[in-house]
Amino acid sequence: MENLVICGTYYTSKDVNEVEVHKDNLICIDHSGTISRTLSPDDKKYLALLNEAREKDRLIKLQANQYLLPGFIDLHVHAPQWPQAGLALDLPLSDWLNHYTFPLEARFTDKGYARRVYHDFIHELLSQGTTTALMFGTIHNDANLELARQAVNYGLRAFVGQVVMDNPDQTPTYYRNQTSAAALRDTEKFIQEILELRKNTSATVMPVITPRFVPSCTDKALLGLGQLAHQYDLPIQSHLSESNWEHEYAIKRFGMHDTAVMDRFHLLTDKSVMAHGTQLTAADLTTVRQRGTTIAHCPLSNIYFGNGVLPTKKLLRLGNRVGLGSDISGGYSPSLYHNIRQAVKSSQMLTDGVDSSQPVEQRGVTGSRITMANAFYLATVGGAKALHLKTGQIVPGFQADFQIVNGHQRLMELSSADIFQRLMYQTEQQDIQSVYVAGKRVYGKD
Amino acid sequence: MENLVICGTYYTSKDVNEVEVHKDNLICIDHSGTISRTLSPDDKKYLALLNEAREKDRLIKLQANQYLLPGFIDLHVHAPQWPQAGLALDLPLSDWLNHYTFPLEARFTDKGYARRVYHDFIHELLSQGTTTALMFGTIHNDANLELARQAVNYGLRAFVGQVVMDNPDQTPTYYRNQTSAAALRDTEKFIQEILELRKNTSATVMPVITPRFVPSCTDKALLGLGQLAHQYDLPIQSHLSESNWEHEYAIKRFGMHDTAVMDRFHLLTDKSVMAHGTQLTAADLTTVRQRGTTIAHCPLSNIYFGNGVLPTKKLLRLGNRVGLGSDISGGYSPSLYHNIRQAVKSSQMLTDGVDSSQPVEQRGVTGSRITMANAFYLATVGGAKALHLKTGQIVPGFQADFQIVNGHQRLMELSSADIFQRLMYQTEQQDIQSVYVAGKRVYGKD
Ligand SMILES: [Zn+2]
Ligand SMILES: [Zn+2]
Repeated sequence: MENLVICGTYYTSKDVNEVEVHKDNLICIDHSGTISRTLSPDDKKYLALLNEAREKDRLIKLQANQYLLPGFIDLHVHAPQWPQAGLALDLPLSDWLNHYTFPLEARFTDKGYARRVYHDFIHELLSQGTTTALMFGTIHNDANLELARQAVNYGLRAFVGQVVMDNPDQTPTYYRNQTSAAALRDTEKFIQEILELRKNTSATVMPVITPRFVPSCTDKALLGLGQLAHQYDLPIQSHLSESNWEHEYAIKRFGMHDTAVMDRFHLLTDKSVMAHGTQLTAADLTTVRQRGTTIAHCPLSNIYFGNGVLPTKKLLRLGNRVGLGSDISGGYSPSLYHNIRQAVKSSQMLTDGVDSSQPVEQRGVTGSRITMANAFYLATVGGAKALHLKTGQIVPGFQADFQIVNGHQRLMELSSADIFQRLMYQTEQQDIQSVYVAGKRVYGKD
Repeated sequence: MENLVICGTYYTSKDVNEVEVHKDNLICIDHSGTISRTLSPDDKKYLALLNEAREKDRLIKLQANQYLLPGFIDLHVHAPQWPQAGLALDLPLSDWLNHYTFPLEARFTDKGYARRVYHDFIHELLSQGTTTALMFGTIHNDANLELARQAVNYGLRAFVGQVVMDNPDQTPTYYRNQTSAAALRDTEKFIQEILELRKNTSATVMPVITPRFVPSCTDKALLGLGQLAHQYDLPIQSHLSESNWEHEYAIKRFGMHDTAVMDRFHLLTDKSVMAHGTQLTAADLTTVRQRGTTIAHCPLSNIYFGNGVLPTKKLLRLGNRVGLGSDISGGYSPSLYHNIRQAVKSSQMLTDGVDSSQPVEQRGVTGSRITMANAFYLATVGGAKALHLKTGQIVPGFQADFQIVNGHQRLMELSSADIFQRLMYQTEQQDIQSVYVAGKRVYGKD
C-alpha cells in the first residue's frame, strides 16, 4: 500500500556512465520508506493510481520546472569544522591545523557548543540535498553522541566517527587522546552508545571506526581500532595518501606506503572509506581495490591540500570503488553539487594539464576526463555502495531518499540531457525545494 | 550634500595584494552617485551626520551580519549565450559551437527574443553583484541595441559589442556577416546608435569594437575595426590565444602569434580587453603589456576550453593588466564569486600540478598561487582600470557601485580577515541583499 506518491520527472544513474530520465512518472513509497514501484504514463494503472493518491491526499505533484533526484551521499566530512568552512584556505597547512582546526575541534569538550554547531550543520547538509553523511566527529564521546542525536532528530542518515589521535608527535597537547588504551576504551564506549541509540530509533545511525590518519595514531591505537572494527563488524574511515607530506610520512615511519600501513592493521575492508588518495600508486590502488575499500574523492579539498588530482577516471576503469566527499572544511562548501562540478573540472584539468609553457603532449594525462554522469554516479550510487545502503537510485526496493529541485529553463527548449546538465551545473541551495529521507520530509523551503 | 548615507562595514582593495576593512563607517554618496566622503566612528562629525541622515530618511544601516563591497566588473561575457549557460560542457568544442552556440546566437535576428533574453540576463547579472559588464552581443544591430537598452533600463554599466565574424572559412552560412564591408558598416551604425542612446541617459553605456576572434574575421574586417576603434576612440574586445587551437590557427594563417596579428591591425590598445590568453608566450605578454591591454581572466571557461591555466600571478608580477570575466557560456556561472574562487583554485593547481605520477618538483609551477585578495582585486579594481572607470573601490571620488551581502557567522568568532574569506568563499546569489549603481538601487531582495 502506498503511503506517498510523487508525480514528476526524475533522474537516476543507470550505471557509472549513464543517467536515465523518467518523465512524469509516479514514484510510490510504502510505509517503511521504501520505493515500492514506479509507473510511467504508459502504464494502464497510472491514472487510477494518480487519482487515488490525490483523493487520499498522498500525492506530491512536481511543478513543470521541478525535478526529482536521489539525495546525495557525502562520504567524507568533518562535522566539527563547520564553523570554519571557507576560512584560512590561503594559509599553509600547519597554520590551518594549529591556528584553526585543532583549536576549534578542541572546543567540542563543551557539549552545549557541540549541540549548537551540529544542530546547524545537520540542517545545512539536508538543505543542500545531502541525505546521508559519513562524518568525522572529534575525540569527545559526548559531543559525538550529540552529533548522532541531531542527525536522528533531523532525519539525516548518519555514520558518525569518534576520532582517535593519540600520537604525541603529531597532535597538540590540548587536543589528543591521553593514552592509546583510553582512546580504544572511549571508542568502544561510543560504539555501544550508538548501538543503544539505534535500538530506539528507526533512523540510520552507525558508529564508525575513525583513526584520524596514520600520522596522528600510535601503532597500538591502529592495531586496536582494526580489532574493534572486526569485532563489531563496523565501517572504518580515515585519510589515505592525502598529500605529499602524508604519503612521505608513512614511508619514513614504517618504511612502507600509507596503504600498506592501513592494510597491516586490518583497516582496509569493504566497509572502509578512505578520503582523498591523491598520491596513491598503481600498487596502492590494487591493494585498495582488492580489499573492496572505497576512495572518497574530495575534489574541492584536494585542490588546497592534495598536491594533485585524483585520477578518478583511471580508478573507475580499474574497478576501484569511488564516492564523493565535501571534506568540510578542507573543502569550503558542504554542497555536493559544488563537489560534482569540481570533480568534472579537476578531471578536465588533469587531462589538459595546467602549465601552457610545456609542450601540449606533455601537459596532461589524456583520457582523464570524467563526465557529469560519472560525477553524479559518485555522489549517489558510489556513496551508497561504499556504505552498503540500498539508496542513491530511484528504483523499486530502494530507500526513498530524494531531493526535489527547481530547474531553470531560461528561454530555450531543453532536452532531457540539457536539463540534467543544467541541474548539475547551476543548482544552488536556493533551488532545493524539499528533501526526503526514507519517504519522510526532512527539509523544505515552504 | 549627501543624497544617501550607508552605515556599515566595508571591504575594498588597497592594492593588488591587500584588502582593507573599514568597520562601521559612514559612506556618503552625493546626488551624482559619487562617494563624497567616508567617515570612521572616530570622526567627530560621525554622530551628527548619522543622526541627520536618519532624520532625513537618507540612511541605509547595515545589519550586524551585512557587509558592503564594491560591485563586481565582468570583463568578458556573451550575453546571447545566457539561455545555454551550464549546457553542453561535456561536448567537444566543435559540437558546442555548431549544435549550441551558433544556432542560439543566430536566433537574435528576432528582436523580441533578444528583448526577453536580455531582460532576464541583465537582471541576473545585477542579482549576482555585478554592476559593470563588458559584453559580446551578436552580429545583429537591433538585438545589440536591445541589450544596451535593457542595461540602461535596469541600471547596469554596460559596454556592448556588435560582433563581427565575416570569414566564411570559420563561420556557418546561417550566422555570419555577409561581407566585410557590411560588417564594418553595421558596426559604425551601431556605434552611432549607442552614442545617440548615451545622450539621452545618465547611465554608462558604451559601444565596443568586437572582432569575435582572429579566426572568424577576414583581414579586411580586422583592419577596418582597428580603424573604427581609433576614429571613435572606443574600447575593443576579443579573444586572444584562448586555446591551443586558436593559438595555432594564427600561426598557420599569418605565420605569427595571435597577439602579433591583433597588434598589426591596431587592435591592442589601452582600451582593449582580450579574453583568456592562456596560451600567451613571454613575448606575447610583453607586447600586451606595452600596449596597456588588459587580459580578461576567465578561470571557469578556461578549464573547458583553455588547455591550461592563465599564470595570473606571473602576469601581475610582470605588470600586465588583468581583470576577471565569467565568459558565459564557456563558463557556466554568471557569478563573479564563483570565478574569484576558481581563479584562486586554478592558481593553486598550477602551483601544485595535477599529475601525481610525476615527481613532485616537476608537477607544477612554484609561486603561481594567487590569494583571495588578488582575485578580489581582479574582479573590482582590475576591471575598473581596464574600462577606465572610477569604480571598483570604496573611496571618495569613486562611483557608488556597491553590493550589500549577508554574511554567515556560524558559531565562531571571526576576525575581519576571516569574514572576508568567508564572503568570498560562500556568498551565493541568495546572500546578495541589494545592489547599487551610482548610488541608485538597481537590485534588492526585499
Ligand atoms: Zn578529512
Ligand atoms: Zn568568449
